[in-house]
Amino acid sequence: MRRLRMGMIGGGPGSFIGPVHRIAAEMDREIELVAGCFSSAAGRSREAGESYRIDPARAYADLDTLFARERDRSDAIDFVAIVTPNHHHLPAARAALAAGVPVISDKPATATLAEAHELAALVASSALPYALTHTYSGYPLVREARARVAAGALGTIRKVVVEYPQGWLAGAATGKQAEWRIDPARSGPGGCIGDIGTHAFQLAEFVSGLQVTEILADLAAVVPGRPVDDDCTVLLRFENGARGVLLASQIEVGEMNGLRIRLYGEKGGLIWKQETPNTLMLHTLDGRTEIIHAGGAQLGPDAVSRTRTPTGHPEGYLEAFANLYRDFAAVLRGEPAPLLPGIADALRGMTFVDTAVTASRTRAGWVPLTV
Amino acid sequence: MRRLRMGMIGGGPGSFIGPVHRIAAEMDREIELVAGCFSSAAGRSREAGESYRIDPARAYADLDTLFARERDRSDAIDFVAIVTPNHHHLPAARAALAAGVPVISDKPATATLAEAHELAALVASSALPYALTHTYSGYPLVREARARVAAGALGTIRKVVVEYPQGWLAGAATGKQAEWRIDPARSGPGGCIGDIGTHAFQLAEFVSGLQVTEILADLAAVVPGRPVDDDCTVLLRFENGARGVLLASQIEVGEMNGLRIRLYGEKGGLIWKQETPNTLMLHTLDGRTEIIHAGGAQLGPDAVSRTRTPTGHPEGYLEAFANLYRDFAAVLRGEPAPLLPGIADALRGMTFVDTAVTASRTRAGWVPLTV
Amino acid sequence: MRRLRMGMIGGGPGSFIGPVHRIAAEMDREIELVAGCFSSAAGRSREAGESYRIDPARAYADLDTLFARERDRSDAIDFVAIVTPNHHHLPAARAALAAGVPVISDKPATATLAEAHELAALVASSALPYALTHTYSGYPLVREARARVAAGALGTIRKVVVEYPQGWLAGAATGKQAEWRIDPARSGPGGCIGDIGTHAFQLAEFVSGLQVTEILADLAAVVPGRPVDDDCTVLLRFENGARGVLLASQIEVGEMNGLRIRLYGEKGGLIWKQETPNTLMLHTLDGRTEIIHAGGAQLGPDAVSRTRTPTGHPEGYLEAFANLYRDFAAVLRGEPAPLLPGIADALRGMTFVDTAVTASRTRAGWVPLTV
Amino acid sequence: MRRLRMGMIGGGPGSFIGPVHRIAAEMDREIELVAGCFSSAAGRSREAGESYRIDPARAYADLDTLFARERDRSDAIDFVAIVTPNHHHLPAARAALAAGVPVISDKPATATLAEAHELAALVASSALPYALTHTYSGYPLVREARARVAAGALGTIRKVVVEYPQGWLAGAATGKQAEWRIDPARSGPGGCIGDIGTHAFQLAEFVSGLQVTEILADLAAVVPGRPVDDDCTVLLRFENGARGVLLASQIEVGEMNGLRIRLYGEKGGLIWKQETPNTLMLHTLDGRTEIIHAGGAQLGPDAVSRTRTPTGHPEGYLEAFANLYRDFAAVLRGEPAPLLPGIADALRGMTFVDTAVTASRTRAGWVPLTV
Repeated sequence: MRRLRMGMIGGGPGSFIGPVHRIAAEMDREIELVAGCFSSAAGRSREAGESYRIDPARAYADLDTLFARERDRSDAIDFVAIVTPNHHHLPAARAALAAGVPVISDKPATATLAEAHELAALVASSALPYALTHTYSGYPLVREARARVAAGALGTIRKVVVEYPQGWLAGAATGKQAEWRIDPARSGPGGCIGDIGTHAFQLAEFVSGLQVTEILADLAAVVPGRPVDDDCTVLLRFENGARGVLLASQIEVGEMNGLRIRLYGEKGGLIWKQETPNTLMLHTLDGRTEIIHAGGAQLGPDAVSRTRTPTGHPEGYLEAFANLYRDFAAVLRGEPAPLLPGIADALRGMTFVDTAVTASRTRAGWVPLTV
Repeated sequence: MRRLRMGMIGGGPGSFIGPVHRIAAEMDREIELVAGCFSSAAGRSREAGESYRIDPARAYADLDTLFARERDRSDAIDFVAIVTPNHHHLPAARAALAAGVPVISDKPATATLAEAHELAALVASSALPYALTHTYSGYPLVREARARVAAGALGTIRKVVVEYPQGWLAGAATGKQAEWRIDPARSGPGGCIGDIGTHAFQLAEFVSGLQVTEILADLAAVVPGRPVDDDCTVLLRFENGARGVLLASQIEVGEMNGLRIRLYGEKGGLIWKQETPNTLMLHTLDGRTEIIHAGGAQLGPDAVSRTRTPTGHPEGYLEAFANLYRDFAAVLRGEPAPLLPGIADALRGMTFVDTAVTASRTRAGWVPLTV
Repeated sequence: MRRLRMGMIGGGPGSFIGPVHRIAAEMDREIELVAGCFSSAAGRSREAGESYRIDPARAYADLDTLFARERDRSDAIDFVAIVTPNHHHLPAARAALAAGVPVISDKPATATLAEAHELAALVASSALPYALTHTYSGYPLVREARARVAAGALGTIRKVVVEYPQGWLAGAATGKQAEWRIDPARSGPGGCIGDIGTHAFQLAEFVSGLQVTEILADLAAVVPGRPVDDDCTVLLRFENGARGVLLASQIEVGEMNGLRIRLYGEKGGLIWKQETPNTLMLHTLDGRTEIIHAGGAQLGPDAVSRTRTPTGHPEGYLEAFANLYRDFAAVLRGEPAPLLPGIADALRGMTFVDTAVTASRTRAGWVPLTV
Repeated sequence: MRRLRMGMIGGGPGSFIGPVHRIAAEMDREIELVAGCFSSAAGRSREAGESYRIDPARAYADLDTLFARERDRSDAIDFVAIVTPNHHHLPAARAALAAGVPVISDKPATATLAEAHELAALVASSALPYALTHTYSGYPLVREARARVAAGALGTIRKVVVEYPQGWLAGAATGKQAEWRIDPARSGPGGCIGDIGTHAFQLAEFVSGLQVTEILADLAAVVPGRPVDDDCTVLLRFENGARGVLLASQIEVGEMNGLRIRLYGEKGGLIWKQETPNTLMLHTLDGRTEIIHAGGAQLGPDAVSRTRTPTGHPEGYLEAFANLYRDFAAVLRGEPAPLLPGIADALRGMTFVDTAVTASRTRAGWVPLTV
């Protein structure tokens, strides 16, 4: 059982998410970073390659060279991870798929909905694996929540509240991480809605097991002069008639990465919060409240198989991320990984962003979400 | 300095809020319950009078007798507290004001907006004190929050999220407390929106110091067959352009009385939760987070004057309620009590309910909130 | 059912605990403050009487007058509450019992163990009711905890950890509240151990249902020059062999009133914290964790009968205190109140203080606790 | 900059801590697992090697072969990680040091104090790097706490309370992880005191920057028939006279891995809890409470350099562990890593265990802790 070989596209000097993907991919020793096109500037790509301690010959500066050189090696890359700003997602994925190389990509899938449709067509015609790193669905207790909902612990779902408050863009947005996110040319038409709203949307559908069919969106650019939204309120209707509320913001001073979800059904309520990810709270109609612990004895297989330590030994963001890579490794070996977000989630997410941006701009009220 | 004498209207056997008003009114020994029309059934009113240990002769069974008999006493009541279901609020207040007796009333002020307008006219023409027990604005740390916002701790307010989740009406609504609340004839056209949505609305305006000028309401009767709303989502715009979200629900299984508010401005964020009312969290733009404790050394006069115990000795719902009665006693003595909700809040609250119910029913989108 | 009439001894201007007793006593309207000897200075006693709004003629300045005058009234006091510094507890109780008046007293029962023995003899010979306000045993969830332990929820108790951290005496101790507490002439030989250690000790025995039979005490005066202990560590052995640890301190900066108890048995663990008194955490050996809510549907009669509001409406310190007065009123009416601390607790507490102080001073190691 | 090559001793099938060391060592890509003697059973060592995906030829079944074969390779191991039960620690370290191979070892350093002295002598004479994985000192906020204490944020330390509650050995101890821990032949004379008490002891000295000079130990085997302690209370005196309490237990049902430390000085208090490791609470004498967040803007270099993600992206146990390996890699490269526990901590820890076990057995009261 050799380790799978990963190439990285993006993740150059100063990148936050590149090292996160590297750590996540390698955590379970099923995958090894061996090559990359970390930057289109040769010097910066080389510098990044050194920081990752890979063979200097495999730190490329353009996609063509990456795929051409790797194709000729006996130890060629098995897949690429795309970790660039959004507007490079489609070109990178297109090149990879054209070279017959599977893709795992940071979210959102593309910068625009049109690109997402092109991507979906390419994935379909290539028949190659494609995965999207919606990190939060990798948390063991998120998977436990999904499993319990699916098993009927809440009865019919009636209400979902998903929130993703952040505050880091409340002031002037400076620095590499901030700048491209508020530039429509690089991020796409959605700001906050694309950057974190998509996570919240995916989480709501993932845990509830229900699709959103209608939305009412109210997006704002609260910081004066900001060209994209930084504060989002979206009302949701799910396919079974359940109501939902999605709140995402990047101007809520002091909020860090407060993604959280609450689901209520006829028989119970379930609450999970990303910043304390190792507990899940379950309320039942008879007035009982149970705290479910990561690593605990009460968990089902989805959670157990994606936990590395016993109860009380906190796992976090990197471990959740690593769970997606473990799923992806399974897919590459030909095994099922039904919980791994893929091209369908990619399309749904971009449709959500596009619909929300358009509906908000036109004050359209309730609009269907049609993928 | 004798104690003020209170008469109670409502609060008969099985009442939850009657005893709460009694405890709150008497806590600071400025007020004493001496009489009441606890029920229109003579036996039940007498039984309640016994449970309150008042003079049996002063447990009346109709409003006319109450006011007539009390008028003739040298130790007559100084005011009445109205603690009936909503549809009796106006008749009771009308009788009291006609008799020249000041009124403190449970919320919402009336069952309908038309009644609220009538009430406002009566209060104005009587020139008598009128107060509305929006309990949560009685918490010392809510008053501290208001004072800090007013002093500019957050800079210009940009966003307010106020939530009031409950779960006790998720199943069949049985029992005295539940039944009248879901009966439009007794509660008015608003269910959850009137019962707890008004609290959330008042709290948002109270702490922010800003008025809501526009709303978008989405109210639902989630439990099949329920004749009033039990789950409410309302988007808010404040007079300064700030955005807000108000969520109130009574079908969120396991939620108890989870009123909470978060305010975000240019310079900071402030969070208060009713179920842990003795702490306030303050975030500032430089990344600091401070926990402010009830009874602590950092508090201003609004909080200090309404705290009875040192830090670490939890005060709660009854003490917050008592703070409103202390304010009301001050008003009756001719002193100012600027933080006590009054007839203006009454009108705003009923306008909010009426506007939300109508706008939601007609799917009107954004509508002005005009009092 | 008339209200019982209370006289107060102590509680003059500047008192913290006097008003607390007054609020607690009157909260359930079974008791009314009507008289007092609030201070031995006539002016100050009168001033306090005014602040409590009692008949000025009944604000006395010495105990003899208090009992003599009250004896002659048809509406004489039914009992006294003693709320002075410790060294006045015995004289006040002695006078009351001699006058045939029942006593409820703040803790500790007396300043010294010898005084406690005298008090116990007086109570026994008088056959009058005597109660000691160990406030924390008045919390509904503390009573629930005791009931669950008694019912075997934890199996045989193996370990009890009770902590009472405070920080308010970490600096120079100034002000009325601080000064007498660190003066052995007024507080007795125990400082922190008598002031809050006794609460922790009583709570441990109350909830566990077990008596402490042996202790090892390490008391310190951490603040230079302090004549009494301000930081206490006491190891405990219970009658069934279970081990315990009692930590009490008044120099732990930032700790407010952090009394908390954890009990572990063969089958479960139970945790309660005074600063969040409305939840109780129950762990079971199969890995489950349940949160038990005040006012919740799962509670037994001890908790239910001492709760005034539904779940989610926080009750706190004053309500817990009021539960002791409700018990005391029951006793005065001839009804049982088995959970109310009395003279046996008084003797045990003072024995604990005396034994701990002596054993610590002599570095005696383990010593028996013999009442 | 090639990756350092790690050999592992122990960590065979069913091991908990072997995979933890592997993940931690490799997380920052400075180290790679390449070889191991995972078990003395050849088949099991091979099986483990496969699970780690290393070259099958480098999964050895005895230490002599491991060091002999590796010595002959051009890509030989740079160091070994010892992750066996305690009684194998010294033999493994002895063999490694004899072969000139640096050692990083799980704690406690050895099974007995005599072994620890032998180990210390071997390390000294070899002049090779030796590190001990006291995981919890690897958490960024623990390092921040240490730095703040050292910088005087609390003033002179007066009191330290360190607790390590667990509950997993409350019942019958079955399974690989439990069995060797309660077998004195494999774990040494200390049970709980060696397994987790040493972590608590090291943390107390690490954060306070003070050495313990005297202890009073009360260890118990609470579960009937258990041959080693499973519940420990140890009173501490620090070199500056400060008092301390160390509680460690493995029979507290429901406690998971609740290591926590509270330090109080003249000017402030500081609290950290392992199960919520990404916040630190700071109290100051003026009544303020600040929450310090991992990844936040207020942190010093010790915390910043050992954090991989922004605020709100939880890091946990594996990342803390990885910080020790990053330190160890620095040491191997000849750089300083002053916060990494080493042979001095090893000796202090074993002296603590030995002194506590002996003093408790003999009920010796206070005894000096002399390393």
